Amino acid sequence: MQTLTVDLGDRSYPIFIGSGLLSKPELLKPYIRGSEVAVVTNETVAPLYLEDLRRLLGGYRVTEVVLPDGEQYKNLTELNQIFDRLLADRHSRATTLIALGGGVVGDMCGFAAASYQRGVNFIQIPTTVLSQVDSSVGGKTGVNHPLGKNMIGAFHQPQAVIADMDVLTTLPDRELSAGLAEVIKYGLISDAPFFEWLELNAERLMSRDADALAESVLRSCENKAKVVAEDEREGGRRAILNLGHTFGHAIETHQGYGKWLHGEAVAAGMVMAVDLSVRLGWVESDVLQRTIALLEQCKLPVQPPKGMTPDDFLNLMSVDKKVIDGQLRLILLKSLGDAVVTAEAPKEVLCELLYSLCH
Amino acid sequence: MQTLTVDLGDRSYPIFIGSGLLSKPELLKPYIRGSEVAVVTNETVAPLYLEDLRRLLGGYRVTEVVLPDGEQYKNLTELNQIFDRLLADRHSRATTLIALGGGVVGDMCGFAAASYQRGVNFIQIPTTVLSQVDSSVGGKTGVNHPLGKNMIGAFHQPQAVIADMDVLTTLPDRELSAGLAEVIKYGLISDAPFFEWLELNAERLMSRDADALAESVLRSCENKAKVVAEDEREGGRRAILNLGHTFGHAIETHQGYGKWLHGEAVAAGMVMAVDLSVRLGWVESDVLQRTIALLEQCKLPVQPPKGMTPDDFLNLMSVDKKVIDGQLRLILLKSLGDAVVTAEAPKEVLCELLYSLCH
Repeated sequence: MQTLTVDLGDRSYPIFIGSGLLSKPELLKPYIRGSEVAVVTNETVAPLYLEDLRRLLGGYRVTEVVLPDGEQYKNLTELNQIFDRLLADRHSRATTLIALGGGVVGDMCGFAAASYQRGVNFIQIPTTVLSQVDSSVGGKTGVNHPLGKNMIGAFHQPQAVIADMDVLTTLPDRELSAGLAEVIKYGLISDAPFFEWLELNAERLMSRDADALAESVLRSCENKAKVVAEDEREGGRRAILNLGHTFGHAIETHQGYGKWLHGEAVAAGMVMAVDLSVRLGWVESDVLQRTIALLEQCKLPVQPPKGMTPDDFLNLMSVDKKVIDGQLRLILLKSLGDAVVTAEAPKEVLCELLYSLCH
Repeated sequence: MQTLTVDLGDRSYPIFIGSGLLSKPELLKPYIRGSEVAVVTNETVAPLYLEDLRRLLGGYRVTEVVLPDGEQYKNLTELNQIFDRLLADRHSRATTLIALGGGVVGDMCGFAAASYQRGVNFIQIPTTVLSQVDSSVGGKTGVNHPLGKNMIGAFHQPQAVIADMDVLTTLPDRELSAGLAEVIKYGLISDAPFFEWLELNAERLMSRDADALAESVLRSCENKAKVVAEDEREGGRRAILNLGHTFGHAIETHQGYGKWLHGEAVAAGMVMAVDLSVRLGWVESDVLQRTIALLEQCKLPVQPPKGMTPDDFLNLMSVDKKVIDGQLRLILLKSLGDAVVTAEAPKEVLCELLYSLCH
C-alpha cells in the first residue's frame, strides 16, 4: 500500500492506494470522530462491497443510503434522499459520511457532507478508476442541473480516501476505459514521462494488472494534488484539470446525462482540445496522433457524437463554468505535458475545428 | 452612516449601518466584480424596494428572482428556482448575488451563492431588524427540511452588508418585535451594559427612532462579530449565539414553520434558557424578571405555545444541531451578559422546567 498526502494545510488528508484495503479497519477508524456513520452507495456497488464495509464498521451506528446508479440521478431530488435519511435517523453534525461508489456517489455524498448541518466529515471509498483518480483529489462535490453539469455544489475536502485496486476487478470494461481517459489527461496536462509510461503500459492497464493500475492511480493523484495544492478554489491554474471537459460537458449535456460516460466524453473532448492546439500552431501534430492512438488503445471515442453540430457545441459551451464574464476560456496544450488556460483561441479557429470534426 | 468591519482574514467584509443607504451606489459597486448581478427578493419586499435597488444597478445585466414570502418557502424546492433562473440567464461564476429581504431571503440567497457553480459572491441588503442583526454577521446560510430547521446549508461570507434603517419604516410591528428579540439576546449573552441600554431605550426602539435602531443594530453586530471572529465555523463558543434557539427551534418545528416568527420563538426560548439557568442556581432570579419585562415591553411572547408538551420539546430538541453524539448541549447564562455552552444541565432539571412551563 502507498500513501499520498494531499497537502492543504489544516484540511490535508491521506489517499491510501493498494490492494486488500477493504479488510483493514485501521485505515478507516482514525477518520471517524463520533459513533455515527452514514454510508452512501448505489444499487450496483451495494451488493458487491457494502458487506465488506459493514464488517469494517462494527461498533458504529450505521445508516445506509442506497441510491439508484447513474449520472442521471445526480440531482437535487436524489440528494434530498440523503438528507431525508440522515434526519430520519437523527444524525448530528458529528456524523461521518462515507461514499462507497464511483464519481456520482462521491460527488453527491460529498455535497451532502458539505451541506448537511452546514458541513460534516466524509470519507471516500472510490470504486472506479475515474473516481479514484479524479474525485479523490480536489474536494469538488455537487449535483447536476438540467441546464448544466455540476452547476450546484461545494468545495469540501474528505478526511481520507481509500483507493482499493481489488474493487476494480468488477468494473465493467467501458468504465475502466472511461477512467483511463482521465489518467491519460494527467500525462497530457502536466507529466510527459507519465504519458510515455502510459503508452508503454496501456495493455497492462486494459488487462487490469493491479500493480499497473495502482501506479497509474498514484501518479494521476500526485499530478492532480500538485495542481490543486497550488489553487484549491480554482481561481486559475487548477482549470488545466479540465482539459477536454468544456467540449466533454457539451457532449454529455447534448446526449443527455448517462448516454456517454463522463470519461468517454472527456476522451473525445481532449482530442478536440489537442486538435485545436495543433491548429493554433502551439503543438506538433504528432502529439495529436499519439493522443488518439493511446485513447484508441484504451477503447475510447476520439470523435464527437454523430449528429452533434457546431452550433450545439457553441451553445452548450457558453453556459460552462469556464465562461468568465461572457468570455470562453479553454484549456489547450503548449506542449505534451504542459497545459494552459487561455481565452486567446480565436473563435474562427474554434469554428473551423467544429466544422471539420462534426458530421 | 457607521461602518463595522467583520474581521475574518481574507474573508473580512464591511457592514454599512445608517439611513438613506439605498440611494448610494458607491456603497454597492465596489463589491460587484463583474457585469452580471442577480437580485433575490420576495413578493413583499419587491414592490417596496426593488425599484430603488434597480436604480443603483444601472449598467449591470440584472436577473431578478422574486420568491414567495415566508419561512415555509425556505426549502430546497424554492432554492432550485434561484438556480433555474441563474442558469436560464447564463450567469457565470463571476456573477454577484444580492439578497434584498429578511432572513429567509438572506439565508436562501446566501446558500444559492455558496453552491451555485460551487460558490459565487454575494451582498446582503437585509430589510428587517432580525436580518440586520442576525444574518448580517456569521456567514450562516441554508434552507429548512421538514424534519428540522436550517439542516441544509453552508458557511458563506458576503462581500458586504448594507443595513439601511429607512427600510424598517415599512416593517410590520410583529416583525419589529421579533427582531428586537435577537437584539436583546446580545445583551443577555455578552453585553450587560447593552442590556441596560435596551431597558432604557425600549420605547424609542418600539417607536422606530432611527438613531436608536441604528445603535441597536450596530451594537448587536459588534457583539456578534466578536463572537464569530473567535469561532467562524461554530466549533465552540460561537454556539452562545444560539441562546434560546434550541427551545425556539422546537417551538417553530412544532407549530409548523411560519406560525410563530423566528424571533418570537427565540424570545420564549430565551425565557426558558434563563429560567433553567436560575433553576440551576447559576443566575439570580431578578435576571429572569428583567428578561421577561424587557421582552414584554417589546411585545414578545414569554411562554411556550399552548398545547406543546414536555415530550414535544424533548423529542424536537434531540434533532437540533446542538446535539453532539447524542448529548444535548444548551446555552445557559452564568450571569447577565455571560453565556456558556453546557452539556451539564441535568435532564431532571430540564424536565422540571418543561413541566412547570408547559400548559
